[in-house]
Amino acid sequence: MLFEREIRTSGKGLVDITAVIRDVLSESRLAEGLCTVFVRHTSSSLVIQENADPAVLRDLEAWFERAVPENDALYTHTDEGPDDMPSHVRVALTATSLSIPFSEGRLMLGTWQGVFLWEHRSSPKRRRVVIHVAP
Amino acid sequence: MLFEREIRTSGKGLVDITAVIRDVLSESRLAEGLCTVFVRHTSSSLVIQENADPAVLRDLEAWFERAVPENDALYTHTDEGPDDMPSHVRVALTATSLSIPFSEGRLMLGTWQGVFLWEHRSSPKRRRVVIHVAP
Amino acid sequence: MLFEREIRTSGKGLVDITAVIRDVLSESRLAEGLCTVFVRHTSSSLVIQENADPAVLRDLEAWFERAVPENDALYTHTDEGPDDMPSHVRVALTATSLSIPFSEGRLMLGTWQGVFLWEHRSSPKRRRVVIHVAP
Repeated sequence: MLFEREIRTSGKGLVDITAVIRDVLSESRLAEGLCTVFVRHTSSSLVIQENADPAVLRDLEAWFERAVPENDALYTHTDEGPDDMPSHVRVALTATSLSIPFSEGRLMLGTWQGVFLWEHRSSPKRRRVVIHVAP
Repeated sequence: MLFEREIRTSGKGLVDITAVIRDVLSESRLAEGLCTVFVRHTSSSLVIQENADPAVLRDLEAWFERAVPENDALYTHTDEGPDDMPSHVRVALTATSLSIPFSEGRLMLGTWQGVFLWEHRSSPKRRRVVIHVAP
Repeated sequence: MLFEREIRTSGKGLVDITAVIRDVLSESRLAEGLCTVFVRHTSSSLVIQENADPAVLRDLEAWFERAVPENDALYTHTDEGPDDMPSHVRVALTATSLSIPFSEGRLMLGTWQGVFLWEHRSSPKRRRVVIHVAP
């Protein structure tokens, strides 16, 4: 079963989409199986990270900002802005698809795990995510 | 079909869990399909790597230790110890879920591929892994 | 349904395999579901990246070459050549498996998304990729 959802972002940073996936899973009415999330973009990606302390998300963003800086003399693809090529590198380093098992109609995430869409562009975007649910 | 297994780790480093997945696949009695492994934590992750020379695993650990050091002045999330925030970055850089096709009841891993749970915390942990097997 | 394909590479860099996956999907005759790609090697990997400007692929390769250099004094696994250990690190940083939903017989990739096999070794190789297609 396939579902498509739009996620609004507000510049670089992680957006918790766990509730979106939970709602889709509930709508599917399946009890047990695998839920796969796919982001249809090359400048935003997916990660599973801690859902408790927001400092974790800020530190993650800061680490990636330093490791993959804007205005790096290395880049030749610069037409789409200083945040574009770093976005592509960050997408390569993280995930475009993620699979999460579910049981008794509930995602089998660990206690501290949340699913996040990671926006790598500086300006707000509307991102499309496809969710596949199967036994 | 879902299976959950506990993996014991002994501090930072990679633990070969290929045999655990093979056993689950055998138990499932399915001949052909896809096996998806999911780790229920935010400070351990999954990778497929060379299963032959242990030096590869040591060098991997050393590269990540240097690229994502402890006690980096960048981190503000420091309450859970110096190895906690680096763990979250390392999880973002590697995988929380991995899918491996199987045929004739055998994982279609390449000759040199093993599946590893990567412990990113310094102290030994009990980690929970969920394995989904489907045609 | 499982398919195995051989991809020829010509040294370090990204090879667009989107057409290979499209052909397999067409051959499967399935209309809706999930397509999972798996690479059977520990020195080549998978990414979804921009399919438009070739400069993106060159910049990606350049970023990884700098971040994971050859002849790094850190490496102890050096028997298989200066490009071997960097390959393993690059595989850990990218993906060995990728899942893409499909609908009406078409991959639900975004407009700018292509699926790439990333060769991390310097010499040309024949790489084996397994594609699993299921509803």
